[in-house]
Amino acid sequence: MPDLSALLQPRTIAVIGASTQPDKVGGMPVRLLSELGYAGRIVPVHATASEVQGLAAVPTLDALDVPADLAIVALPVSASLDAMRQLARNGTRAAVFFTSGFAETGGNGIALQAELAALAQAHGITLLGPNCLGAMNLRERVFATFSPIPLGGLPPVGEVGLVSQSGAFGAYAFALAREAQLGLSHWVTTGNEAGLHVADVIEWLARDDATRVILAYLEGCRDGTRLRRALAAARAAGKPVVVTKVGTTEAGARSAQSHTASLAGEDAVYQAVFDEYGVFRADTLEEFFRLGYVLSRGRRPARWQPSAKEPANAVTPVALVTVSGGVGIMMADQAEALDLPLPPMPEGPAAALRSAIPFASTANPIDVTGQVVAQPEVLLDAIAAAAQSPDYGSVVAFRAGGVGSPRIWPGLQDTVDTLYRSGTAAPLLFSGLADDDKRRWLEARGALAFREPAHAVHAVAVLARAAAQAAAAAAPIPAAAAAGSLPVPDVPPGTTALSEFEAMQWLAACGIPTAPHGLARDADEAVRIADTIGYPVAIKLCSPDILHKSDVGGVVLNVADAQAARAAFAQVQAAAASHGTPARFDGALVAGMVRGWGELMVGVRRDPVFGLVALAGIGGTAVEIFRQTAFGLAPLSHARARTMLRASRAEALLSGHRGHPAIDAGAVAEVLVRVSQAAAALGPRLDTLELNPLIVTARGVVAADAVVTLHAEAPDRHTNRPTEETTR
Amino acid sequence: MPDLSALLQPRTIAVIGASTQPDKVGGMPVRLLSELGYAGRIVPVHATASEVQGLAAVPTLDALDVPADLAIVALPVSASLDAMRQLARNGTRAAVFFTSGFAETGGNGIALQAELAALAQAHGITLLGPNCLGAMNLRERVFATFSPIPLGGLPPVGEVGLVSQSGAFGAYAFALAREAQLGLSHWVTTGNEAGLHVADVIEWLARDDATRVILAYLEGCRDGTRLRRALAAARAAGKPVVVTKVGTTEAGARSAQSHTASLAGEDAVYQAVFDEYGVFRADTLEEFFRLGYVLSRGRRPARWQPSAKEPANAVTPVALVTVSGGVGIMMADQAEALDLPLPPMPEGPAAALRSAIPFASTANPIDVTGQVVAQPEVLLDAIAAAAQSPDYGSVVAFRAGGVGSPRIWPGLQDTVDTLYRSGTAAPLLFSGLADDDKRRWLEARGALAFREPAHAVHAVAVLARAAAQAAAAAAPIPAAAAAGSLPVPDVPPGTTALSEFEAMQWLAACGIPTAPHGLARDADEAVRIADTIGYPVAIKLCSPDILHKSDVGGVVLNVADAQAARAAFAQVQAAAASHGTPARFDGALVAGMVRGWGELMVGVRRDPVFGLVALAGIGGTAVEIFRQTAFGLAPLSHARARTMLRASRAEALLSGHRGHPAIDAGAVAEVLVRVSQAAAALGPRLDTLELNPLIVTARGVVAADAVVTLHAEAPDRHTNRPTEETTR
Repeated sequence: MPDLSALLQPRTIAVIGASTQPDKVGGMPVRLLSELGYAGRIVPVHATASEVQGLAAVPTLDALDVPADLAIVALPVSASLDAMRQLARNGTRAAVFFTSGFAETGGNGIALQAELAALAQAHGITLLGPNCLGAMNLRERVFATFSPIPLGGLPPVGEVGLVSQSGAFGAYAFALAREAQLGLSHWVTTGNEAGLHVADVIEWLARDDATRVILAYLEGCRDGTRLRRALAAARAAGKPVVVTKVGTTEAGARSAQSHTASLAGEDAVYQAVFDEYGVFRADTLEEFFRLGYVLSRGRRPARWQPSAKEPANAVTPVALVTVSGGVGIMMADQAEALDLPLPPMPEGPAAALRSAIPFASTANPIDVTGQVVAQPEVLLDAIAAAAQSPDYGSVVAFRAGGVGSPRIWPGLQDTVDTLYRSGTAAPLLFSGLADDDKRRWLEARGALAFREPAHAVHAVAVLARAAAQAAAAAAPIPAAAAAGSLPVPDVPPGTTALSEFEAMQWLAACGIPTAPHGLARDADEAVRIADTIGYPVAIKLCSPDILHKSDVGGVVLNVADAQAARAAFAQVQAAAASHGTPARFDGALVAGMVRGWGELMVGVRRDPVFGLVALAGIGGTAVEIFRQTAFGLAPLSHARARTMLRASRAEALLSGHRGHPAIDAGAVAEVLVRVSQAAAALGPRLDTLELNPLIVTARGVVAADAVVTLHAEAPDRHTNRPTEETTR
Repeated sequence: MPDLSALLQPRTIAVIGASTQPDKVGGMPVRLLSELGYAGRIVPVHATASEVQGLAAVPTLDALDVPADLAIVALPVSASLDAMRQLARNGTRAAVFFTSGFAETGGNGIALQAELAALAQAHGITLLGPNCLGAMNLRERVFATFSPIPLGGLPPVGEVGLVSQSGAFGAYAFALAREAQLGLSHWVTTGNEAGLHVADVIEWLARDDATRVILAYLEGCRDGTRLRRALAAARAAGKPVVVTKVGTTEAGARSAQSHTASLAGEDAVYQAVFDEYGVFRADTLEEFFRLGYVLSRGRRPARWQPSAKEPANAVTPVALVTVSGGVGIMMADQAEALDLPLPPMPEGPAAALRSAIPFASTANPIDVTGQVVAQPEVLLDAIAAAAQSPDYGSVVAFRAGGVGSPRIWPGLQDTVDTLYRSGTAAPLLFSGLADDDKRRWLEARGALAFREPAHAVHAVAVLARAAAQAAAAAAPIPAAAAAGSLPVPDVPPGTTALSEFEAMQWLAACGIPTAPHGLARDADEAVRIADTIGYPVAIKLCSPDILHKSDVGGVVLNVADAQAARAAFAQVQAAAASHGTPARFDGALVAGMVRGWGELMVGVRRDPVFGLVALAGIGGTAVEIFRQTAFGLAPLSHARARTMLRASRAEALLSGHRGHPAIDAGAVAEVLVRVSQAAAALGPRLDTLELNPLIVTARGVVAADAVVTLHAEAPDRHTNRPTEETTR
């Protein structure tokens, strides 16, 4: 695991290329560190000046008496390698290179960056950048950046760690955090990522005591293994991660590539990675910060339950208390969309409310009506009753313009304090207009306040999920069964594809249900096999030279009897011979025609960034038209496989579709798990494994066709050498 | 068309039930009108006091010397009918009834409300309420409300008219408008809607010179005809309408029903209505106000073009100018999601930018990079070049923290002023942090400013659509061909369903392609018809007594020859006889088996609120699993039919699916249009018309089955008598 302590908690900081002019790139860090209260030692390094901005300077790092923890390097690109060698001689532990002109310029810059990274690695120097905006530790007042943005004021010190590949995004995010008074622990921009990646920073923040929530901005990821390790660390630490991953559309990905040349990857695969590790994804800046606010300030519900629509997700029953029926309906719409249960008010408090306001609605939303203007205590009583009821995991109250009105505010304060002192009340969330002071009073108690009612309801869902994830982090992870636990037959080295017969044999040996089948070398054998299986059968050419066998007449379906089987065998044999260059003929696959009422497709393929990815969906025309394929990292957990069946709507074919018998979706999910395990067991050799169709029958799913392609040799593991792709 | 002038532009206002205590329901309107500068005559009506809040009072309206334009009634429910009779005697033109205790309480309140409405109607009194929060005209300082919210300050007078069914929503919206400084013209809440509906207010605002944008909040609609007329009026006036319609989910609709007992209707049908009239729909309060801001303050682009994904929608090419590559990608993602084209920078300005900043990106997003800190003029030049280029319809500039920074602000002001003076520059939209003064300076010039970059891009799409709609409003509407233009054969009175044979005959006569078919009374005739059509054929029982003919063995498919045709005829005849109570036997439908590669389904059904609604989608398993049916109001325009084919993905089956020939989607859309016209020609008698499947063949689509059900008599037109459904 990368150690960022020298970068983020340095006691001595050298500024190489320090400028006497505080607003220059080399002057700004000296200015920020001096003016904003950094308590450690600042050592400006300046070729000629003996003093820089009032601090004693040294001419080179060689003149420094101790090793620096951190060196900030603000030199032209031509002086960078020399600077790195100085750092090595000094024993510096970490370096921030602001310098641009490296891989982002292409050509020679790529080689230069590779050399810089190699030097850093050889001397054990943690490298941030080059071409980055630097880093900050708010608590310890470390400002290793040339951005002037901290001069405009600092956000409060808090528990949100923010990491951004982009410097400009990072600076804007800092300004927004300051404006929203979102408490930050650390702020890091990674730039060209010759050394530290966004993933490394996430992993370090996951172990940092000062950080409870991690916000990350990604354009692309070149090392899926590192990102997965980082997200796993955050999950294990029970720290929610909010990610904005841009380049989700074609235009965005195109400009992400031109901008950073990051390997954009397929967005659905990123989503599968995020789902695997419980990452909260935000599509807009507004959502990015809102999630940071909710997760760092909000109380998590003490109870939650699996979502009815999506059991892998956790939800909590919520009481919606409102003074406006209309806004109540808006909130109910949102709660239903998020699958939050809305149990009615318990009978006791409901009766009390009705006796106070006869026209109040005690269903959920609980509508105390505009009558609250005359009887404000009724609203408070309803909130208190809901918060104390075991029926609810959270309470959202909409109070229109009056969250902070003088008629209700003192009572509301009492209610919040009393409830929270009890220790057992459900978390409270408010929406409506309130001035900043009152909002902050609520927030200080963990009672969130929103202007937008739908955001308050969304926050309930976010906090329920975070609570469930934190609890799961404490428990041992129900990992996907180790791939090794499945007896997977060997595939001989050098193989690049299995014939359909070999693929079916191999799948069957892996415990995956396949149509009954055999390989016939001659017509007699074809009839024998077909007689054993029972008619009708399919007869298909087996030749290592012919990929698209149906194009050459190599497939005959619905073969009804022995005579037809002989004719079909002759036909596929002739097809091999009549192929442009005569093809090898290994025989014919004879397989039972499986009858069912639907087709699934299941596959595993290698993603260049994240490795093996499983996909599943409804096969046939539907998958082409509706494109609802679901993804998951292979090997799959059982829960993930269930989620994929649900997300792709494949489950609809299993649950009594059109009067067909319902079949066990858990057993089908288990088939997906096995397919993914079998693929994973082949390791880096596997290229593609596809079962299409996987026919849905009353006795479960059965593979009727299979494709397996392999690399003759395992491809190189991803290495971290800089290439053109590392520019940004 | 309802006349709201007496309600919203009264010269004399009587307050019946006026209170000497300014904070009482009957005191507040007197206080608001007096304190906030209403210039007309205020007449408090008070049984005993001769003066109310400093104004001379009369004991009853009968003592008033002139007819009041508007009477505000703040009396208990028991005194309401008497008050209405006073109004009638006085000749009052309009009334606001705050009074609750009517239909929203059920029981006797319903009858009372009906009586109130009938009295108002009989005497030509425009009625708002009862059980409503009243209305305001900001320009003329009319405050016919008991909400104290105007005392907290008023939003600016402006061009946005706001109407809300819910009073509490309306009050909150007023407070938010004040906070956002969104300029309002009128504010109306409709409550129980015994007289005026939200629709009536929309229609009046559509013709009101002071209003350019209409914001409406709806829980439900009981009179689809009125709403359609209102939306058509707004469209014809070129005034955009933003609607928040709550109750979109099951839980929301359930609580909408319990809250207002409005007939919730199916959300997809509402959406079809909104699409038909170009309504902008907002799902959250934030979006509701943002759309109001964009549409009332934003400049519309001078050029637009049909969206590539959705030709019925208009988009405009946009230049994204950014100082942050990362935010540039976010904006590009959003632009692509909204289908806004992103042409690259024209070569001249691109070369100039590259010579100023070699690493700048001149693709789109146009990334001037962080170098803008040193060279701010480069950003301004890029903005100016893009705004003056004929390649772009709008320009969005992201300037991070620096929209208002002193280094760039004066130059930015010059740039905006110069561009807008030219009269030909594309509209400018900014995102980034800016203080309120600077944001308002930009807004005053029609240059919008947003914190969220994605919102700036969304605004471009909204303004392009509004520009196209305004231009279309000026042109004559390309209406759906009048239903009468299609020769639709009569269906005898009293018919409640057509047999499949009758339905096929009727469709064919309407010019809709059907499978070749005939009615056979005996086996010989079945063979003769089948011989003529060509085998295979389908043979189906025709009996008015049997609806589900396949359940009783009344359907035989794939009949291969004459012998099989005889057997099939015998089978379906026997099926009729063996039915529980022997069924009438009209004969057997003999129809050609149409071969194709996909199935559509097309139908028309009667929505209780909006009348005939057409639906279309992919048939078979897919429609059950993916539920992507698209809706449109019948009769359909050709453009709407095309949109439905696209939205339901049915078009995918028509455009070369799986190697099948591409067929003319326009011709298929024309079939949808004819089906909808045929249904509409039957008028109120039609209940359901369904073609399922409509088989996709190389020669177009062919109906292979049809269901037509009718009302024996036309149902009553919707009347406006209050029922339990009118409560809120």
